[in-house]
Amino acid sequence: MKQSDIQFAHRFDQVTGSAIREIFKVIAQPGMISFAGGNPSLDALPDQVCADIAEHVLRENGKQILQYGATEGYPAFLESLHEYVNKQLNCEVPAVLPVTGSTQAMDLLCKALIDPGDVVLVENPSFLGNLQCMKLYQAKLVPVESDGDGILTDDLEAKIKRFHPKMLYTIPTFQNPSGKTLPADRRQKIAELANRYHMVVAEDDPYRDLRYDGLPLPAIKYFDEDGWVMFLGSFSKIISPGLRVGYIAGDPGVIRKCTVGKQSTDVHTSNLNQAIVDRFLRDNLLPDHIRSICADYGKKMRLMLNKLDEFPEGVKHTSPQGGLFIWAELPEHINARKLLDLAIARKVAFVPGTHFCVDGGHENTLRLNFSNSTVDQIITGMDILNELVAAMK
Amino acid sequence: MKQSDIQFAHRFDQVTGSAIREIFKVIAQPGMISFAGGNPSLDALPDQVCADIAEHVLRENGKQILQYGATEGYPAFLESLHEYVNKQLNCEVPAVLPVTGSTQAMDLLCKALIDPGDVVLVENPSFLGNLQCMKLYQAKLVPVESDGDGILTDDLEAKIKRFHPKMLYTIPTFQNPSGKTLPADRRQKIAELANRYHMVVAEDDPYRDLRYDGLPLPAIKYFDEDGWVMFLGSFSKIISPGLRVGYIAGDPGVIRKCTVGKQSTDVHTSNLNQAIVDRFLRDNLLPDHIRSICADYGKKMRLMLNKLDEFPEGVKHTSPQGGLFIWAELPEHINARKLLDLAIARKVAFVPGTHFCVDGGHENTLRLNFSNSTVDQIITGMDILNELVAAMK
Repeated sequence: MKQSDIQFAHRFDQVTGSAIREIFKVIAQPGMISFAGGNPSLDALPDQVCADIAEHVLRENGKQILQYGATEGYPAFLESLHEYVNKQLNCEVPAVLPVTGSTQAMDLLCKALIDPGDVVLVENPSFLGNLQCMKLYQAKLVPVESDGDGILTDDLEAKIKRFHPKMLYTIPTFQNPSGKTLPADRRQKIAELANRYHMVVAEDDPYRDLRYDGLPLPAIKYFDEDGWVMFLGSFSKIISPGLRVGYIAGDPGVIRKCTVGKQSTDVHTSNLNQAIVDRFLRDNLLPDHIRSICADYGKKMRLMLNKLDEFPEGVKHTSPQGGLFIWAELPEHINARKLLDLAIARKVAFVPGTHFCVDGGHENTLRLNFSNSTVDQIITGMDILNELVAAMK
Repeated sequence: MKQSDIQFAHRFDQVTGSAIREIFKVIAQPGMISFAGGNPSLDALPDQVCADIAEHVLRENGKQILQYGATEGYPAFLESLHEYVNKQLNCEVPAVLPVTGSTQAMDLLCKALIDPGDVVLVENPSFLGNLQCMKLYQAKLVPVESDGDGILTDDLEAKIKRFHPKMLYTIPTFQNPSGKTLPADRRQKIAELANRYHMVVAEDDPYRDLRYDGLPLPAIKYFDEDGWVMFLGSFSKIISPGLRVGYIAGDPGVIRKCTVGKQSTDVHTSNLNQAIVDRFLRDNLLPDHIRSICADYGKKMRLMLNKLDEFPEGVKHTSPQGGLFIWAELPEHINARKLLDLAIARKVAFVPGTHFCVDGGHENTLRLNFSNSTVDQIITGMDILNELVAAMK
C-alpha cells in the first residue's frame, strides 16, 4: 500500500504523538540521568509483595479471575475500592468505576461528554497525555490563568461565562508538570462554579498521597453539592503503573455512560490486576508502603530544590510540597530545547516545558522529575544543568 | 444534579448498551443453564499454570513489569508475539501491537480511521460489542449479503462501488454469532477487492484455533498484497478472557496511528498480563492446551448440533466446524424473545438473534453457546428448548 493512500480520521489532524517520543528514546541510552519521565522509583515498586499476591489470588480464585468479568468491575475490588474512595474523599461518592489506569478514565469521560468543538478549560501547562486525549476528541482547549498556587477562580468564572465550557480539566494537587497545589478556598470555589454554571469538572488527582510537607487538602469533589465533579484516581504512583489500575468516581449517570463506553473499549479491566490492588486495600498495605515512598521521594525533592537554588540568578522554580515534578523557568533568552541538546550530550535529560503548553511557547521552561533518580544522580545531573545554564547566560 | 441537565456526547444517541444487559443479569441467577454468553468453560481456564507463571515473572522481573511500559508493548512479548503472528498467518506481518483484548484493537482501529458518517460494511448478524464500538464512532453500518458460508463477494463488490466504504468488518472463521466459516476462495477475493478499491479490512479472528472438524484455512491477511488487511487476534478464547490480552497486526502506518491513539487510551497494556502470555508462547504451552480445549468443546458442539436436529420440523441451524456458537432459525411465526421469556422461567437462557442484527428484525433467530455448559446442562437445556418450541408451533 502506498501509505499516502490511507486516509486517517480527522481527529488525528492536530495530533502526532511524536513531540516527546524522541526524548524518551534518548533517555533509554545507557548511563543517562533522566529527570524526564514521571516514573516511580524502582525501589518503590513492590515486586515481591505483588508476586505473593498474584500467586495467592490466582491459586484461590483463579477461575473467576481468568473468566470474563463485569465491565462494572471485579466484585471484590469494586467493594473495597468504593470504601477506599469514600475514605480518601471524606464523603459518600455515589458510584465508582475501576478502569485501566486513570488515563482510561479520561478517555471514557471524553467519550461520554465531548463532541467535536466542545470547549474544555485547562490549566496551562498541563499533563501532556490528557491534553492529547482531549485533542483526539476534538475538544477546543481554552487555558485558564494561574498564579503560583494554580487556577485563578476569577478568570475561571470569566472564561465559563464567555465560552460555556463542557468541562474543566484540572490536576489540583502537585500538578503535572508545575508541581503547584490549589488552596482549599479555591477548590471550594471551583466546585461552586461548576454547580452554578453546570460544568463538569474532571478532577485528576493521582499524586494526592505523595505529600512530603504540609497538610492534606480536601478534594474539589468534597465541596461538590450536585454531582458535577468527576474524580479520577490512580494506583500508578502508590503501587505500580505497570498494572494499569485506576478509577473514576462521581455521578451515577456519568459513570453509567462511561461503563457503556468501556464495554466496547476493553470490555473490562483485567481481573487479575483488580484482584491484586484489592488485596492491597483489604490487607491495609498502603499506609506503610506510601510512608516509605514519601520518605524517599521527599528527600529527593528537597535535594533537587536545594540544587535549583544554587542555579544562576534569574532561574526561578516552583516549590512543591509533594508529587513528582518541579517546574523551572530560565531567563527568557535561554531556550530549554537548546539546553536539552547540550544536556543530552552530557547524559542528562528533562522535558522542555513547551511540550506541556496548550499553544506551545514558554520556550524557557522545563519540567524536572526527581522520583526516578538516585541522590547521586540528582547531584551530578543538577550540577551539569547548572553549569550549562551558567554558560548560556 | 438533575440528570437531565447533563448533555452527553452525540455519539451515544444511538447507543444505550442495555439491549443484552438485562439478559446477562438474568443469567446470573443460580441454577440457570446459560447458552447466552461467549465464555470459555471454567475447565479451560489454566488457573494453576497462571498462578505459577505470574509468581515466576514477578519474582524474576517484577521491577520492569510493575514500572511504566512502552505503548508499543512489553519488549519480550512484542518479540514472541510477532513470531507467533507470523506463524499463525503463514506470512511476514510488518507490525504488531499488543492491546488490552481484541476489543481494544477494534476501538483503536476505529479511532485511527473512522470519521462520523464513514461507511463500514459488516456481516449481518455480527458481533454486538464491535457493532456498538463502530456506532460510538458514528460509522454508517451497511450490511453485506451472506449465504451459508458467509459474505457473498459479488454483493461485497457492488456495495464497495456504491458506498465507497472506509472499512469492511468481518469475522471469517466460526463467526460470532452465526458460526459460519468463509471458504478460502472468498477470503482471497476479499483481499483482492480491498487492494483494488483501497478499503481497509478489519479481519477479526479470535476463534481460528478452536477448530473441531475440517482443515484450517488461510487468513484473509495471507492473501493481502499491499497491506489493506488489519488482523485482530485474541488470547481470550485460548488462554483467558479475564487477562485482556489481544493484538492488532498489519500495515505499520496504521499500527502507528493505533499506537498514538493508545497512548491516551490506556498508555499501555498491563505488563504483567503481557508477560504471562509471553511465557505461554515461549514455553510452547499453547498447542497442548488448545488440543485439550478443542476435545472438550468439539464434544459439546456435536452434542448440541445433535440435539438441534431433534427439534421440530422447520427449525434450521448452522453447522459450524469450530468456535463457540451455533445460530438457529425458528419457523417465522415464533418470536425468539418470547421463547426466551418462557425458557428463563424454566432456567434456560440464550440470546435472541435480533440483538446481533444491524437493523434489528430476524425475530425468529437465536444464538446458542455450547462452551460454557456441561454435557448434562446441554442435554437438559436443549430438551427444554425443544419442548418449548414444539409447544409454540
